[in-house]
Amino acid sequence: MLDELRQEICKANQDLETSGLVKLTFGNVSGIDRNKGIFGIKPSGVSYADLTPGQIVLIDLEGEIVEGDLRPSSDTKTHLRLYQAWDSIGGITHTHSVHATTFAQAGRPLPCFGTTHADHFYGEVPICRALDPEEVAKDYEGNTGLAIVQHFEQNGLDPNTMPAVLQRHHAPFTWGKNAMDSVKNSIALEVCAEMAIGTLQLDPQVSHIPSFILEKHHQRKHGTDAYYGQ
Amino acid sequence: MLDELRQEICKANQDLETSGLVKLTFGNVSGIDRNKGIFGIKPSGVSYADLTPGQIVLIDLEGEIVEGDLRPSSDTKTHLRLYQAWDSIGGITHTHSVHATTFAQAGRPLPCFGTTHADHFYGEVPICRALDPEEVAKDYEGNTGLAIVQHFEQNGLDPNTMPAVLQRHHAPFTWGKNAMDSVKNSIALEVCAEMAIGTLQLDPQVSHIPSFILEKHHQRKHGTDAYYGQ
Amino acid sequence: MLDELRQEICKANQDLETSGLVKLTFGNVSGIDRNKGIFGIKPSGVSYADLTPGQIVLIDLEGEIVEGDLRPSSDTKTHLRLYQAWDSIGGITHTHSVHATTFAQAGRPLPCFGTTHADHFYGEVPICRALDPEEVAKDYEGNTGLAIVQHFEQNGLDPNTMPAVLQRHHAPFTWGKNAMDSVKNSIALEVCAEMAIGTLQLDPQVSHIPSFILEKHHQRKHGTDAYYGQ
Amino acid sequence: MLDELRQEICKANQDLETSGLVKLTFGNVSGIDRNKGIFGIKPSGVSYADLTPGQIVLIDLEGEIVEGDLRPSSDTKTHLRLYQAWDSIGGITHTHSVHATTFAQAGRPLPCFGTTHADHFYGEVPICRALDPEEVAKDYEGNTGLAIVQHFEQNGLDPNTMPAVLQRHHAPFTWGKNAMDSVKNSIALEVCAEMAIGTLQLDPQVSHIPSFILEKHHQRKHGTDAYYGQ
Repeated sequence: MLDELRQEICKANQDLETSGLVKLTFGNVSGIDRNKGIFGIKPSGVSYADLTPGQIVLIDLEGEIVEGDLRPSSDTKTHLRLYQAWDSIGGITHTHSVHATTFAQAGRPLPCFGTTHADHFYGEVPICRALDPEEVAKDYEGNTGLAIVQHFEQNGLDPNTMPAVLQRHHAPFTWGKNAMDSVKNSIALEVCAEMAIGTLQLDPQVSHIPSFILEKHHQRKHGTDAYYGQ
Repeated sequence: MLDELRQEICKANQDLETSGLVKLTFGNVSGIDRNKGIFGIKPSGVSYADLTPGQIVLIDLEGEIVEGDLRPSSDTKTHLRLYQAWDSIGGITHTHSVHATTFAQAGRPLPCFGTTHADHFYGEVPICRALDPEEVAKDYEGNTGLAIVQHFEQNGLDPNTMPAVLQRHHAPFTWGKNAMDSVKNSIALEVCAEMAIGTLQLDPQVSHIPSFILEKHHQRKHGTDAYYGQ
Repeated sequence: MLDELRQEICKANQDLETSGLVKLTFGNVSGIDRNKGIFGIKPSGVSYADLTPGQIVLIDLEGEIVEGDLRPSSDTKTHLRLYQAWDSIGGITHTHSVHATTFAQAGRPLPCFGTTHADHFYGEVPICRALDPEEVAKDYEGNTGLAIVQHFEQNGLDPNTMPAVLQRHHAPFTWGKNAMDSVKNSIALEVCAEMAIGTLQLDPQVSHIPSFILEKHHQRKHGTDAYYGQ
Repeated sequence: MLDELRQEICKANQDLETSGLVKLTFGNVSGIDRNKGIFGIKPSGVSYADLTPGQIVLIDLEGEIVEGDLRPSSDTKTHLRLYQAWDSIGGITHTHSVHATTFAQAGRPLPCFGTTHADHFYGEVPICRALDPEEVAKDYEGNTGLAIVQHFEQNGLDPNTMPAVLQRHHAPFTWGKNAMDSVKNSIALEVCAEMAIGTLQLDPQVSHIPSFILEKHHQRKHGTDAYYGQ
């Protein structure tokens, strides 16, 4: 069932390791088939090198396992809440990539200092508040997803133009059109975070990119008259 | 004798180099067979690429060489003291990985700033005091092990939930259920140390992770109701 | 047509990725045949691993596509303006390499702190001003090229001895005798930028290299009596 | 002639690139046959991947080329002066490795903050003064070697226990028993420099390693009763 999706998700998870974004098993990718209302996700704690498409766990939008012998990623309910809330997204990636996680740990949003960032994220990448003790106790991973969705709603953010969030004390989540696209956003986020740390080191008071350059770069790649790519 | 253990230890030592944790011969891994009371350790100064299972030196818990033509790691007596004191550990890794060693050189414990850390180490990774001149002169490596054990006792630390220490002016030691598990803890420690340096750069006054999130992440991976992994 | 040039440009683009200068599709290389007045450039958004010489887009010095089924790099008009203004250059590279981009984002020129820099760039690598909203709206990429050329003219800089510029809020461009030479200058620029950040960290007031050492290193490699290389 | 030496030097030069110490052609290794009074060195500007043992240039201790069709490294006279002054050394490496060069550019010696450093360098790695304009004009590379030798003499440093120097505004030189040993010292120097930058970031006032620990680590590896290695 959903063999092509399984293969894409398997490959996307393995790319986490080969791209240097994760060590050990510090990350997971999922992808969804919106027609069937089923998403596939990495099984928990399985090494990327050993991962096979057949091990991808299939889950429906009520959170029930449809197919799979292994336990899904411990972060599955965070993915579920994002898929439920945002029907335009087709894939989600969670990593603990070093520099993006550094911003999450420092509790700071990631400012947009240049066009590398503007090409992928339309403005500052937001930081989502920490959960409170009750939220953690009741449903840690599900409530993480709900807090992210709530943050976007309350701040008027569009997940289509801002495909990333930093979870306070934790690490980033990114999403995209499909599994592989969400991995690309994790790669871009990590590069932007690394550049931002250096930029702040050179000038702690550095200004954000001017809005008309942000607009230009984002539109030439993602706008209706985009002319980046084929 | 102990062929399987030798192979695991050989592979674990080689993983130090392929994972980027060590250069030249800056590290060593050991693993123990508790039934036989014998541990195997890397021979001193042998390059990882050239290492073979047959070169692993076997040593009993009195510190006597049981089998092996080569001189064991110069840090062997540190490993010995830890195996003697803590019968729950099955493997030990010593590296000079860049960022963990940076904290050891700065004489600072490694604070827990996020869930990457909480997943592996239950709180701040401690720093063990430097030896005094007499301890160095009499039995440098053995006394290093004793100082670590003493530090854990005096500070109420449990080596099962805190599988790492930073030795002042020196570098980290980690341990685990077996040789490979101790290497994984060295990998995790290095990533956490790199993130912590960046986090402190972004905010020198940043707060530690809230205790209920530390608790949650550690328990979901290591607690009695753990649901991470298979 | 221009098969050899296509091959060189294809290889030069792939070197961007293998040298670690770019992730995803964050960069492009072009090269020109001055006799024919035609340059070749990477097609937009194509992954380096998939790139073939036949996909290189050929463009004349009026900016018209001469051959090629794919859309050229979105930065093509920046390349065009530099080839039009500076007839001594034979190749151009654009990357978002982490440390050089960090200086571009911080809005600071890259000071010459040592001989690594002096071997490639005759003095401080300049930073070119940001475009204004009208320039961005009318012809973003073309005006970027014009602003770079203008900066060199107004500051008496020679593109032959200063084969690099940092574009404010954006990233570096480098050039050289041919496509591969421009890539080498991007590699050198990135190393120099990484060293400069560390140097400023160790001493924020550090002095530039003395002029007679800058002169010596540049001349021994690029002067009329150069004795570096074969 | 000297085929084995040529092979070792060729391999040692290639290790500069594979170990990540150099980019492009930013470094060179030489090795000497003391019986014949001839050393071999990398030809100038040749890429490491293309280098063959037959291309190694052989030079006598008067600085005359004995064998070789290519121009030797532009730094040859620095190597020559060190071989002339210090008859106990058998190999020399020059790199522009990022972190060691950062200290050279900042004009700071590299302090000994830990045992990684103590294992290789007996105390602070010195920084050698910049040449004056006349020294640069007359014989830049030769005078660099003489300034290094003079610095060691005036400061009572022994090249056998301190196999490295940082040349102000330039980069490091290391040496050792033979070509490969000098490369290992360059690898160790780069790691120590990277750790030192982080250590100073965590604590700008951090103290050096206590002398009795420096002594212990250096002696256990290099002393008459050394017990490190086989």
